Amino acid sequence: MSVNVGILGGTGAVGQRFIQLLDGHSDFELVAITASDDSAGKSYREAAKWRVDSPIPDWVGDIEVRETDPQAVPDDVDLLFSSLPSGVAEVVEPRFTEAGYVVSSNSSNSRMADDVPLVIPEVNGEHLDLLEVQQDERGWDGALVKNPNCSTITMVPTLAALDRFGLETVHVSTLQAVSGAGYDGVTSMEIIDNVIPHIGGEELKMETESRKLLGSFDGTEIDHHDVNVSASCNRVPTLDGHLENVWAETRKDIDTDDARGAFADAPTLDLPSAPDPLIEVFENPDRPQPRLDRTLGGGMQIAVGGLQNTPSGLQYNCLAHNTIRGAAGASLLNGELLVREGWV
Amino acid sequence: MSVNVGILGGTGAVGQRFIQLLDGHSDFELVAITASDDSAGKSYREAAKWRVDSPIPDWVGDIEVRETDPQAVPDDVDLLFSSLPSGVAEVVEPRFTEAGYVVSSNSSNSRMADDVPLVIPEVNGEHLDLLEVQQDERGWDGALVKNPNCSTITMVPTLAALDRFGLETVHVSTLQAVSGAGYDGVTSMEIIDNVIPHIGGEELKMETESRKLLGSFDGTEIDHHDVNVSASCNRVPTLDGHLENVWAETRKDIDTDDARGAFADAPTLDLPSAPDPLIEVFENPDRPQPRLDRTLGGGMQIAVGGLQNTPSGLQYNCLAHNTIRGAAGASLLNGELLVREGWV
Amino acid sequence: MSVNVGILGGTGAVGQRFIQLLDGHSDFELVAITASDDSAGKSYREAAKWRVDSPIPDWVGDIEVRETDPQAVPDDVDLLFSSLPSGVAEVVEPRFTEAGYVVSSNSSNSRMADDVPLVIPEVNGEHLDLLEVQQDERGWDGALVKNPNCSTITMVPTLAALDRFGLETVHVSTLQAVSGAGYDGVTSMEIIDNVIPHIGGEELKMETESRKLLGSFDGTEIDHHDVNVSASCNRVPTLDGHLENVWAETRKDIDTDDARGAFADAPTLDLPSAPDPLIEVFENPDRPQPRLDRTLGGGMQIAVGGLQNTPSGLQYNCLAHNTIRGAAGASLLNGELLVREGWV
Amino acid sequence: MSVNVGILGGTGAVGQRFIQLLDGHSDFELVAITASDDSAGKSYREAAKWRVDSPIPDWVGDIEVRETDPQAVPDDVDLLFSSLPSGVAEVVEPRFTEAGYVVSSNSSNSRMADDVPLVIPEVNGEHLDLLEVQQDERGWDGALVKNPNCSTITMVPTLAALDRFGLETVHVSTLQAVSGAGYDGVTSMEIIDNVIPHIGGEELKMETESRKLLGSFDGTEIDHHDVNVSASCNRVPTLDGHLENVWAETRKDIDTDDARGAFADAPTLDLPSAPDPLIEVFENPDRPQPRLDRTLGGGMQIAVGGLQNTPSGLQYNCLAHNTIRGAAGASLLNGELLVREGWV
Repeated sequence: MSVNVGILGGTGAVGQRFIQLLDGHSDFELVAITASDDSAGKSYREAAKWRVDSPIPDWVGDIEVRETDPQAVPDDVDLLFSSLPSGVAEVVEPRFTEAGYVVSSNSSNSRMADDVPLVIPEVNGEHLDLLEVQQDERGWDGALVKNPNCSTITMVPTLAALDRFGLETVHVSTLQAVSGAGYDGVTSMEIIDNVIPHIGGEELKMETESRKLLGSFDGTEIDHHDVNVSASCNRVPTLDGHLENVWAETRKDIDTDDARGAFADAPTLDLPSAPDPLIEVFENPDRPQPRLDRTLGGGMQIAVGGLQNTPSGLQYNCLAHNTIRGAAGASLLNGELLVREGWV
Repeated sequence: MSVNVGILGGTGAVGQRFIQLLDGHSDFELVAITASDDSAGKSYREAAKWRVDSPIPDWVGDIEVRETDPQAVPDDVDLLFSSLPSGVAEVVEPRFTEAGYVVSSNSSNSRMADDVPLVIPEVNGEHLDLLEVQQDERGWDGALVKNPNCSTITMVPTLAALDRFGLETVHVSTLQAVSGAGYDGVTSMEIIDNVIPHIGGEELKMETESRKLLGSFDGTEIDHHDVNVSASCNRVPTLDGHLENVWAETRKDIDTDDARGAFADAPTLDLPSAPDPLIEVFENPDRPQPRLDRTLGGGMQIAVGGLQNTPSGLQYNCLAHNTIRGAAGASLLNGELLVREGWV
Repeated sequence: MSVNVGILGGTGAVGQRFIQLLDGHSDFELVAITASDDSAGKSYREAAKWRVDSPIPDWVGDIEVRETDPQAVPDDVDLLFSSLPSGVAEVVEPRFTEAGYVVSSNSSNSRMADDVPLVIPEVNGEHLDLLEVQQDERGWDGALVKNPNCSTITMVPTLAALDRFGLETVHVSTLQAVSGAGYDGVTSMEIIDNVIPHIGGEELKMETESRKLLGSFDGTEIDHHDVNVSASCNRVPTLDGHLENVWAETRKDIDTDDARGAFADAPTLDLPSAPDPLIEVFENPDRPQPRLDRTLGGGMQIAVGGLQNTPSGLQYNCLAHNTIRGAAGASLLNGELLVREGWV
Repeated sequence: MSVNVGILGGTGAVGQRFIQLLDGHSDFELVAITASDDSAGKSYREAAKWRVDSPIPDWVGDIEVRETDPQAVPDDVDLLFSSLPSGVAEVVEPRFTEAGYVVSSNSSNSRMADDVPLVIPEVNGEHLDLLEVQQDERGWDGALVKNPNCSTITMVPTLAALDRFGLETVHVSTLQAVSGAGYDGVTSMEIIDNVIPHIGGEELKMETESRKLLGSFDGTEIDHHDVNVSASCNRVPTLDGHLENVWAETRKDIDTDDARGAFADAPTLDLPSAPDPLIEVFENPDRPQPRLDRTLGGGMQIAVGGLQNTPSGLQYNCLAHNTIRGAAGASLLNGELLVREGWV
């Protein structure tokens, strides 16, 4: 099986991660890359300032970049990944879904829309069925699926595992890498020898997206979980890898062994990019660390450590690679699920 | 008034901060510096590898370093500051207090001992009276006062202010600078492009020291506060300045204006090194930041920002300079209080 | 004596340094700040995102920002400092000089123009007399003086001192701080755990500006020095302070003591911002270091170290604070010289 | 073919790189690891604090660490790699060579000894024949081969290529990563927001080792090249990858195309760890960069960029991974050459 895929907005940092991950992918063949109008017509090599730490694949360098317009994308593309700026995505993604394309998008727009599934395959893959409602309501032939924000993805697989004990309250403090803001998002003057204790909109995303992801789909709509998440988000001088300090309070008392058991039971899917296990637990309290552990499982695993019982709930740290599991890899995995579930 | 002071263990990172802060001090005159035996007899300039970012004061460079022994310290020294390694301090500090010296110590040993006052002057200066019990029980002519750990000091002045609303539960996540581990404590290979989500013993210090500091002294002993503090401590790639994300839950409902009022009411003391105000509140949510705000009030102020109401309590960030307010400046301020209260 | 001064383009990183340096200046009173049109009319506090590590002076925060236009600047301003982007400066600075203003500019345009003095007061203050030629040729009532590029300023005072031995060839490799590129010039993704071995145009600036600075003025024009400078410029992850590795070959053989003597003889001027001595020589081979030594002499000193004789010439390192001695402080010192020499 | 190999001093940073590189090696099977006495008897997993960014191979974790003593190493080990501290190596390596072992060592001792070949296979593999002299003179059954210092290796392959034009004078300024000093070699307090313009002994190593490497072997001794190398060495805040600014002056005039040709002609060996090409030339002047390009060719390639003609010679930058091509990979490649040349 080979599925022809394209990338909307493929020259930026997340776009380059898509290309790294698609290079040699077992099921997907990259056949189209779009970008802004001034890049259209150039070779990808020329249009993108390649910045990741493996050389640009030759076959990608030669691809001619297209306009981000349904007319410009060949008909035999079955699946589109989107890493467009959210303002652009808001306007452009519906044009593609109207034209019949299935879009797996990392852009932050429309994530909380009632008829848009927000999916982490190992957590709530069944929310994909919301696409029937979406197609009905919007009259689309195509479909739009979103993955959550990078800081949300890092934590929610662990919360889903703990929800068997009745998740009630979560405090989470994040130490987020600069790549999460995009290539130009954080200047060096801002972050060398410094921390920025604020990331616009991030805390709200963690609080609301978590509730939707952990919610249940009744065939018509998503019933959001009532967990109360309180997030404090910080930017720190790391390149990749979001580390998060979590306290989770549950209805039933749990100890660290209960948590280990729950994490070990987290599902592993039979999809090309799905890690096994989903959650890797470290016993050394000084792990996971961003630089040493962000590429576990090809950057798709959730690393957990520092498990402790406290009077304020189960305390632990979790870590994931923010531009792989938290962005391009998230959309890719959603794409793999869309194929398996017959939407592509 | 001029008080002759000395430093026990004055060649290390905290010792150098003591010297910076004593240079030009209105009331204290530095007359003696001790260090390990292999430094004794050398000039301070020769013994210390001066590493702070202002030149070594000439008059200090010429001081001859002494052995860390009561015999080696001149009799006219009225007050000693200690930045000895805690293992050494455990053995040596009692020798000085037995010999009649008053010691204001930053070392971590004995902080939780029943008869040792653990003091932040603006928070619990009245705990100094415990020294009468100490002298009685130990038969000392001198006295030993401790200041808390740097991460504790950063947070507790804000907690003390909020306790008027009945402090019950605190979650705190720290982003601590490398200087907190001493000059050689964190290697560059460990921390460049990285975070270490564990600092040995630090979480327990924050939890237990906070209870003692916020406790009340009944004339005989300290009744520790029953607040439940749960800390998650991280080392980040900053040089100086501990930033902390706090959630404080109180018996009475409070909003951010209540908190602003409480912070504004925090006491300011009439001591040379006491900042005014004690707590500076920023309204821009991306402040305070370690690099930009750690030297507020000469490094003695507590900076607060990001005030929010959440269902999980009052959320905010606080920041202090860990080797000034959190170490050398803390001991110095305790020394100033000891003088004012007649113990020196 | 008090001279009313203004800043053209005062909201950026160099503009903020101007304000830090003018706060409390003995001779200059800041009375006007201009910026781009969308800032005009706002208070400085509102228009500038204040980013330096001392609080914004209150009296400056209240100044109303003006348009960068001669009409908008009050007549009683005697001297203007310019930190405009060079493209803007190219157009705007002549409008001010035509209108009679004396402009001491840090912008890179016109530095190599035949009738524009490029000045480091301790090196070639006599080049100011070129202003007579400038006013004649251009018909200006005002005058335009430039200071060189930050990487040039760091090195040229040492070269000027060594020129008594007949400077012939210079190899210089720079390790430049990110602030040299402006607040947004280097992204964190580019420089964390990295070096960028290229700074556009920088090598040529060092090579040509050095020749002009070391040249002689014959009353009509500057005769450029024939020293052959070959520069290799690198951006490194430091915030402030350009460090440079220099090899200087001279006609006469010199040893390190000759060099020490020459550096000690470097002139110190009787101007408010002039450091004394101009050049500070370190004997410890691991100094100067950017973080520890960049603020020597208020950031106006040139620190030198690592002096060695080699078969390829005298080898040494030099360091200066790139946004003080290398930018705002450079223009300020030129302004002080302009006043002393009667041009203001 | 499979050769049994061991590592002397295998628990440190370079030892861990050896293990990464030997994991899956086509010709070598790792069968023994030695370390200091207090590690002997432990499993490798227990003895080594594993710090590289790929998980410890399981089969290595279970190896029992041995004493660094010929008696403790099994007889069927054919080749030993050494990453012992040089003081230890000075004493211990001869015990192994006397006992008949062939040792390929990265330790800095004895590199300049007359009868010890200092080898980069692509540069001076023929120097291996000096081992006959060594065995004769020392009465060893075994043999000792050294690779040069990491900063030397980065540059010398480019100098060897240019020597066809008659290499006369080299100026080189280095920007070296912290890993070059070993895991604990540079503290975070020393290097965050800083550069250290001095690395003890490094400049001399670059100057003398280069001459030996570029020298010729006449069957009896090495005739050192008479090139005059002048080095200025700096430590910068990068984790891995030494970047070097080079100016090379040659007897014959050369332009950048001549240099490109010479670099393209650099030999590529048919050895498992030898890169092809040896030297990769970048045309974009801002490359190579340490973080982006240090893993080229598995970390064994020399990256070159910024080629320019200057009046002071050919100017360019070169980069290599200091703990792969500059340390463990260098010894490994020497080991592969020793096998091919029949010494093992």
